[in-house]
Amino acid sequence: MEAIFDEAGKLAAEVLAPLNKTGDQDGAKLADGVVTTSPGFKDAYAQYRDAGWNAVPFDPNYGGQGLPYAIAFPVQEMWQSANMSFGLCPLLNQGAVEAINHHGSDDQKNTYLPKLISGEWTGTMNLTEPQAGSDLGLIRTKAAPQADGSYAITGQKIFITYGEHDMADNIIHLVLGRIDGAPDDVKGISLFIVPKILENGSRNTVECIGLEHKLGIHGSPTCTMDFDGAKGELVGTAHEGLRYMFTMMNNARLSVGLQGVAIAERATQKALEYAHDRVQGKSLSTGARAPIEEHADVKRMLLTMKALTQAGRMLTYEAALALDSGDKGKVEFMTPIVKSWCTDNAVEVASLGVQVHGGMGFIEETGAAQFYRDARILPIYEGTNGIQAADLAFRKMQRDQGAEALKYITEMEPYLPLEYAQGLKDLVTHICKATPEEAAASATPLLKAFGIAAGGAMMARAAQAAQRLAQDEFTAEKIRLAEFYRLNILPLALAHIKIAIDGPAPII
Amino acid sequence: MEAIFDEAGKLAAEVLAPLNKTGDQDGAKLADGVVTTSPGFKDAYAQYRDAGWNAVPFDPNYGGQGLPYAIAFPVQEMWQSANMSFGLCPLLNQGAVEAINHHGSDDQKNTYLPKLISGEWTGTMNLTEPQAGSDLGLIRTKAAPQADGSYAITGQKIFITYGEHDMADNIIHLVLGRIDGAPDDVKGISLFIVPKILENGSRNTVECIGLEHKLGIHGSPTCTMDFDGAKGELVGTAHEGLRYMFTMMNNARLSVGLQGVAIAERATQKALEYAHDRVQGKSLSTGARAPIEEHADVKRMLLTMKALTQAGRMLTYEAALALDSGDKGKVEFMTPIVKSWCTDNAVEVASLGVQVHGGMGFIEETGAAQFYRDARILPIYEGTNGIQAADLAFRKMQRDQGAEALKYITEMEPYLPLEYAQGLKDLVTHICKATPEEAAASATPLLKAFGIAAGGAMMARAAQAAQRLAQDEFTAEKIRLAEFYRLNILPLALAHIKIAIDGPAPII
Repeated sequence: MEAIFDEAGKLAAEVLAPLNKTGDQDGAKLADGVVTTSPGFKDAYAQYRDAGWNAVPFDPNYGGQGLPYAIAFPVQEMWQSANMSFGLCPLLNQGAVEAINHHGSDDQKNTYLPKLISGEWTGTMNLTEPQAGSDLGLIRTKAAPQADGSYAITGQKIFITYGEHDMADNIIHLVLGRIDGAPDDVKGISLFIVPKILENGSRNTVECIGLEHKLGIHGSPTCTMDFDGAKGELVGTAHEGLRYMFTMMNNARLSVGLQGVAIAERATQKALEYAHDRVQGKSLSTGARAPIEEHADVKRMLLTMKALTQAGRMLTYEAALALDSGDKGKVEFMTPIVKSWCTDNAVEVASLGVQVHGGMGFIEETGAAQFYRDARILPIYEGTNGIQAADLAFRKMQRDQGAEALKYITEMEPYLPLEYAQGLKDLVTHICKATPEEAAASATPLLKAFGIAAGGAMMARAAQAAQRLAQDEFTAEKIRLAEFYRLNILPLALAHIKIAIDGPAPII
Repeated sequence: MEAIFDEAGKLAAEVLAPLNKTGDQDGAKLADGVVTTSPGFKDAYAQYRDAGWNAVPFDPNYGGQGLPYAIAFPVQEMWQSANMSFGLCPLLNQGAVEAINHHGSDDQKNTYLPKLISGEWTGTMNLTEPQAGSDLGLIRTKAAPQADGSYAITGQKIFITYGEHDMADNIIHLVLGRIDGAPDDVKGISLFIVPKILENGSRNTVECIGLEHKLGIHGSPTCTMDFDGAKGELVGTAHEGLRYMFTMMNNARLSVGLQGVAIAERATQKALEYAHDRVQGKSLSTGARAPIEEHADVKRMLLTMKALTQAGRMLTYEAALALDSGDKGKVEFMTPIVKSWCTDNAVEVASLGVQVHGGMGFIEETGAAQFYRDARILPIYEGTNGIQAADLAFRKMQRDQGAEALKYITEMEPYLPLEYAQGLKDLVTHICKATPEEAAASATPLLKAFGIAAGGAMMARAAQAAQRLAQDEFTAEKIRLAEFYRLNILPLALAHIKIAIDGPAPII
């Protein structure tokens, strides 16, 4: 593992990280349907691909390395930390690989997986349309059955990450559409594979017709894709597209949580460095001029940044371990929490990072502002955090009457002060009895309470583990950070429990 | 009052608001020392000035209208809400007017006030230098006494808002510097008036040598100013500059809090509009497709945005009333709370505004992202929110042993659930006994607890007042919003009280 992490760290630090700021300043460009990625991205992708990094978590039957998620996640965190705009390409590709691997025919697997896994080709997820965002039932893209068994796909998709680019020989679009005559709602949606380049080498009739001008992640091309009778293959059974889509989506949601951890880490490192170097004001104890890292309020910000980042990382890696051990119930329960809590924290941590830099933080050249801009997409894409919260309340709690939630609380219990575990249990009971309107109105504070408490349990567990290993500086820092979390962050969980229970009336 | 507000509203909505987005996209430019403001700003300023708006709160002896702050604040809120980049020019000018009015000689008042009050000239605050941000003791700008009684000012100032521009005939710089031989620390700082154009019509040797490339407020030129032996006049007594600076600064801090309210209001209006129009997902009660404003989680976001904005507004206007009634103690106590709480909320509300827009929020054309970028400066400038928190803990609480704080709690008490007033009293007692290190480490949660509780008391008071006036839709909305605040925001105050009391150990 160490050898893998070291090598990944090198590529991330030496190749991808330097392209983060240039990718922001000189982002992807569109001309005549051709998207040129930011200078350096194409070469960096080639290095990433040639070193075999794309294959890390995938099925060895198709050229994957078959490494566990517990290894793949830290590796992927490095790409995201170094350059989130770059890291989005493999993130989306992973969704495409999983969808084909789980639901494709053998023929489709043999055709697409080897090159999507090697990284010669990249995959995309084409879900959103202007009128169909969180509500995929409104999808209008059409699929007309053809004599040869294929489908002619026609429609417009928006917000397609890496929908078009110059880093791979082919782009394999996974597209949600509706077969002629299919039911009107989510029950009539099917999933199609639509390659940019067809097997015979000709160009399919799918084109990028626009790039979004975004707040952040300028290095990542966000495409409007026009499908004009493009040739597509049905994946699995007709009308089951939404279910298949969740195969792509669910792990992508964990990966977006991981992006949150990654950008929080980057913002934290930058703030720590600045606070160490910037001398301003005097030490309260010695009266001498001091670096701002010594001022209590700056310390509070830095400790908050570190604590939220580390807690989020442990939570995300715990989900990876559950993926590896096949604990599906735990993965499903944790997914909305990891996605939302880690990404809300990413925005908060990036914002604190700007604040630590003072006036310099507001100047673009400093770089802290880019993290604040980039991070803001994370609570939105792959299912908004509001959608995640509803998922937690309804599908992950009401549906099994709190069984998985209570199991998770039992795991946290040894690492939490008494009142927190009890508070969470009461909250689960409350949610399970709530009307749909009440549960929906409680969903966000419910999710926050679980995120904060789960993060706190992780911090305490890590401190105990560190203590068992050694009595060194690392251990002392772990213990201090867990203490900081318990006293300065954890109390907010109780407030959110109270809000989740008492709050809905004026919302409904 | 209504006539004034109506007229201000017209100018804000019709002239300033349309320039907000263009000012962002096509900001101020520098060429050869000349700053050209964004297209339309110059004309807009002329309209603003010619209608007499600049004179609203100022001394009638020098052409001011002498209107109370209780009127000036709502008027100024409109400028800031319509166009924060534009509004910064009068905001800084106000600081210059106040400094000269309080500390200038009669001669200086007669020379500068009439035109600064009419708006023919604008004023600036030149404090920051690269090495001297929060720590003004490090200022190096030199002032060499001249035979004619003036001073030759030499040095470089950064982050000077509207330090140079094309909207006024002259720019009057208020500059902090150190007279040759003055003490090394804050006790050796003096305040100078340095006009861009001298009385004889010649150009003074002060020049804008750079504009910052910022995260937001692109319409507001943020200048690096080079003073090269520029002719300056001492204000008041030598070495008293820092004290005079606080005259400029203190009201500017309230005005920055007001900017927070203003941009939160704008972000809220935008989000309400989008949530009303955007149809997505189904109503839990009817099953029909619904505008997203009907979904519980979106409602929670919109209610949070409204509640934080209204609470902040009332708090800021209450400070204006205290200014008008001359309750200096109350103003001083409220200033750091208004500045920090309203500006942290501005960032949170603008971020929620992006979230309400979903994917569209991340697209710059939508406009929600601009508020998120613009708002981020507010917790930083005019004293970072960390500096404000320290000001609250030390100068506004420890110094008078909590007298003003307890008075303020007594005012809030009728409008707060019992445990909140008691919690705040305990917290004041705790802070007054704390060591400097402890107080510094508690300062931020202390400020948050007071902000949240004070906002909640205001909401309850407003609901009660509305109820006494009428039983209409407005009243019903006020009551609902106060209830929402009490149940969904106020509980966080108790968490912050706990954090402020228990949290410092791992920070110190």
